[in-house]
Amino acid sequence: MSAREPRSRTRGGGRDARRAARARSSAVQVPYITRKLPVYEVLDEEGLALIEHNADTILEDIGLEFRDDADALRLWKEAGASVDGERVRFPKGLCRSIIQRSAPAEFIQHARNPERSVRIGGPHMVMAPAYGSPFIRSLDEGRRYATIEDFRNFVKLAYMSPSLHHSGGTVCEPVNLPVNKRHLDMVYSHMRYSDKPFMGSVTAPERAQDTVEMAKILFGDAFVDQNTVVISLINANSPMVWDGTMLGALRVYAENNQATVISPFILAGAMSPVTVAGTCAQILAEALAGMAFAQLVRPGAPVVFGTFASAVSMQSGAPTFGGPEPSLVVYVCAALARRLGVPFRSGGGLCASKTADAQAAYEAANTLQTAMLAGVNFMLHAAGWLEGGLAMGYEKFVMDADQAGMMQAFLEGVDLSENGQAMDAIREVGPGQHFLGCAHTQANFETAFYRSSIADNNSYEQWQAEGSLDAEQRANAIWKRMLEQYQAPELDPAIDEALTAFMEKRKASVPDRDY
Amino acid sequence: MSAREPRSRTRGGGRDARRAARARSSAVQVPYITRKLPVYEVLDEEGLALIEHNADTILEDIGLEFRDDADALRLWKEAGASVDGERVRFPKGLCRSIIQRSAPAEFIQHARNPERSVRIGGPHMVMAPAYGSPFIRSLDEGRRYATIEDFRNFVKLAYMSPSLHHSGGTVCEPVNLPVNKRHLDMVYSHMRYSDKPFMGSVTAPERAQDTVEMAKILFGDAFVDQNTVVISLINANSPMVWDGTMLGALRVYAENNQATVISPFILAGAMSPVTVAGTCAQILAEALAGMAFAQLVRPGAPVVFGTFASAVSMQSGAPTFGGPEPSLVVYVCAALARRLGVPFRSGGGLCASKTADAQAAYEAANTLQTAMLAGVNFMLHAAGWLEGGLAMGYEKFVMDADQAGMMQAFLEGVDLSENGQAMDAIREVGPGQHFLGCAHTQANFETAFYRSSIADNNSYEQWQAEGSLDAEQRANAIWKRMLEQYQAPELDPAIDEALTAFMEKRKASVPDRDY
Repeated sequence: MSAREPRSRTRGGGRDARRAARARSSAVQVPYITRKLPVYEVLDEEGLALIEHNADTILEDIGLEFRDDADALRLWKEAGASVDGERVRFPKGLCRSIIQRSAPAEFIQHARNPERSVRIGGPHMVMAPAYGSPFIRSLDEGRRYATIEDFRNFVKLAYMSPSLHHSGGTVCEPVNLPVNKRHLDMVYSHMRYSDKPFMGSVTAPERAQDTVEMAKILFGDAFVDQNTVVISLINANSPMVWDGTMLGALRVYAENNQATVISPFILAGAMSPVTVAGTCAQILAEALAGMAFAQLVRPGAPVVFGTFASAVSMQSGAPTFGGPEPSLVVYVCAALARRLGVPFRSGGGLCASKTADAQAAYEAANTLQTAMLAGVNFMLHAAGWLEGGLAMGYEKFVMDADQAGMMQAFLEGVDLSENGQAMDAIREVGPGQHFLGCAHTQANFETAFYRSSIADNNSYEQWQAEGSLDAEQRANAIWKRMLEQYQAPELDPAIDEALTAFMEKRKASVPDRDY
Repeated sequence: MSAREPRSRTRGGGRDARRAARARSSAVQVPYITRKLPVYEVLDEEGLALIEHNADTILEDIGLEFRDDADALRLWKEAGASVDGERVRFPKGLCRSIIQRSAPAEFIQHARNPERSVRIGGPHMVMAPAYGSPFIRSLDEGRRYATIEDFRNFVKLAYMSPSLHHSGGTVCEPVNLPVNKRHLDMVYSHMRYSDKPFMGSVTAPERAQDTVEMAKILFGDAFVDQNTVVISLINANSPMVWDGTMLGALRVYAENNQATVISPFILAGAMSPVTVAGTCAQILAEALAGMAFAQLVRPGAPVVFGTFASAVSMQSGAPTFGGPEPSLVVYVCAALARRLGVPFRSGGGLCASKTADAQAAYEAANTLQTAMLAGVNFMLHAAGWLEGGLAMGYEKFVMDADQAGMMQAFLEGVDLSENGQAMDAIREVGPGQHFLGCAHTQANFETAFYRSSIADNNSYEQWQAEGSLDAEQRANAIWKRMLEQYQAPELDPAIDEALTAFMEKRKASVPDRDY
């Protein structure tokens, strides 16, 4: 998957050479994308101000519940909110002012390989694999429960994908491990099999703490206290509830100066109103309260405004993806995050399809394009997502990663240099000739166009001669070859031993549990 | 495929009911889209001015060839261009000033059903089927040469697709009819089996004239002279050549006040430089010369600035679709058309894939999203395109038409009315509850979210129980049902007879030819 293969290997005839050429995209590994193109806006100043006004009204009049966390209620009371049972109501502007006082507009999440540290916020975009699926799907095995082997496979695939900048978090649920211990193996896998940045456990405060302890072994105590080395996903229990589990994990990370993505999880029509404007106001209210809470815990702890946007089918109640309304929600919320001055998370290759078919691809492409143009800074679920997040697809993963490479190339914008203007080429070629052999083409052909690893652009006859494979079948060959070719990044054996020892000690300290 | 089925038919249990529900999208038939959202721009004023400057340089220094058309050369000489053999060089600003003097910024193409007339230009978007494929593909038959029966089928499918506004032109090549007569059957099919606007023949001036004559039978002589009832695709022979066939067809349409889409046909790297900025300058130069020529023929004849953008694979020379560079070309050229003040054509559901698989869908979705956000006014190839245009896909057609419906919904923008804000719903539901049953949801659920005709959003188990069909298989059932349910729009029998008589006379007047 390296970007700059010698020309002799990418040209020349033969089925194998062509297959090999297809398996390599032209994506260049960069630590993260820095966009040179503007974002797309769907609302003007007046429209955005109206949504903000409505979010303020929700916060002030209706309030949010902070459940099973007495200390959170205490912090809110001290900060000036009105607390009634678990219901917290916020004077107008309180959350916004708390956030704007201390939350960074942009921050670095360090990777153990410093060349792979990412900037989250501003004009930057970081793409991470899908998150949270209990199942995997592959062309060979169909759908089955995921294991820790699958987890390691996806860590390896993300490591080898030049257009994924992040190792992600729960890339799939290793359901063959006990629930109360699997986070250790997940965090260890990210640390051991990749050198890209990763996400921490959020399923219980003590698991978040384990993540931080392991990060300290990897990065050193002092470094972790002063720098962000873990980012973690904190979902609201929409509508308008933050629950004790998530608040506990949030608190551990914020206390340790680690980043959290404060994410309302919206299936519009079920967890929010059936309209875009209503959904956006609710999302903003939930995100404001969550991000402000993180700042109360530790001012300056990095937070990301998150939005997971789906619309439920009004026929069946099932989540749908890739449609117009969730796209509008993402565009609006990205603009709201910019106005607030914090990084934004959304998007990904979302779909409801059970297989990596045309439905999956239309929906994923629509979601990815939206996220790219909206100005998403941290794109979770960028690769692998199937079936509303229930399955992580091996073939879908490499297909989506190919799309991520296209986005990187697109966001480079238009080269207006003399070489980009190519007037010499136009003069050289002239009317009625072709550009294939001209000097300018020869000088630029290696980097001229993004080269997809998945697409078959050959003639029908050649495609037939190669077995009439569809994209899913070609993707199947690609991920298998990647795993064959995987080589682990170096890790100091002393650190590896310390991590292993920590895990063993923690595993031995409690019995296995399935919750 | 009607938009407002009674609720009892779209809900309720059972496999058949669910299948039936899926076959109906929630798209509403409107004659054309009027966007409520802004366009996306990738270049600023300075960048666009640079491209325009380079186009002027191409026109002035290099010039274009107008081949096999002495009268075109005469018109250019009279207009102040320098003519050297067939090479025409244009003083700076000449083409632009000719266009801006008389070409309309927006025009109406009348349909025989006045409710289906379209506005082309400004904030409007018209979506038309793919154009020009010699082959068709279906899941049942695979790939084979197209026939006039296929042609009629696609006219019927476009007629029944609420999100396609136009019947298109050569929706596929009816290769079972003689080359020199098939245009008659194609034009007749559009007139007879649909009441949406359509495109004319361009493969020879006399065939263009036949199109105009048949339009006069359908609409009346005087109406046709004063109104635009046909739009036709005039491709440049890029780079920098307008050939006699296309010029001849262009002239017939312009003389008759009918619209032409003046379209450089670009496989970048072959017909234009390998860079975006170079390609855009060349496209602008070619389009300026072609549109200005139409204005010389008849000032005020509607013209559309066309751009067909692909990038060739630098490995094989094959055209590729859905990648980042052609997207940038479309965004830039759309902006150039706006600055010039003419409508813009580009986009579609383009792909290189041989089947309606994930490759087809990623590439089509990327191209469709780009065209939508770029502000394309006339979107040719919006549905059905496979294999770089070599095949028209039955399944792909209904899949793409579904995407067109999503675009219509997206471009409606965000509803900021009180109902859209949904504050009452948020108050009614409150923290921790769900919105499915609340009054606001009940009042809005029919129209709340776009309902895809293709997507299966059901549970894995239900999807399995229904046969584990992929999107292509579901689409197969949909187009077949549509053709079963097709009912022809009324046509005055006297007109039908006159059209038939005209065709028979023309067919009898010359022997069959295969050129």
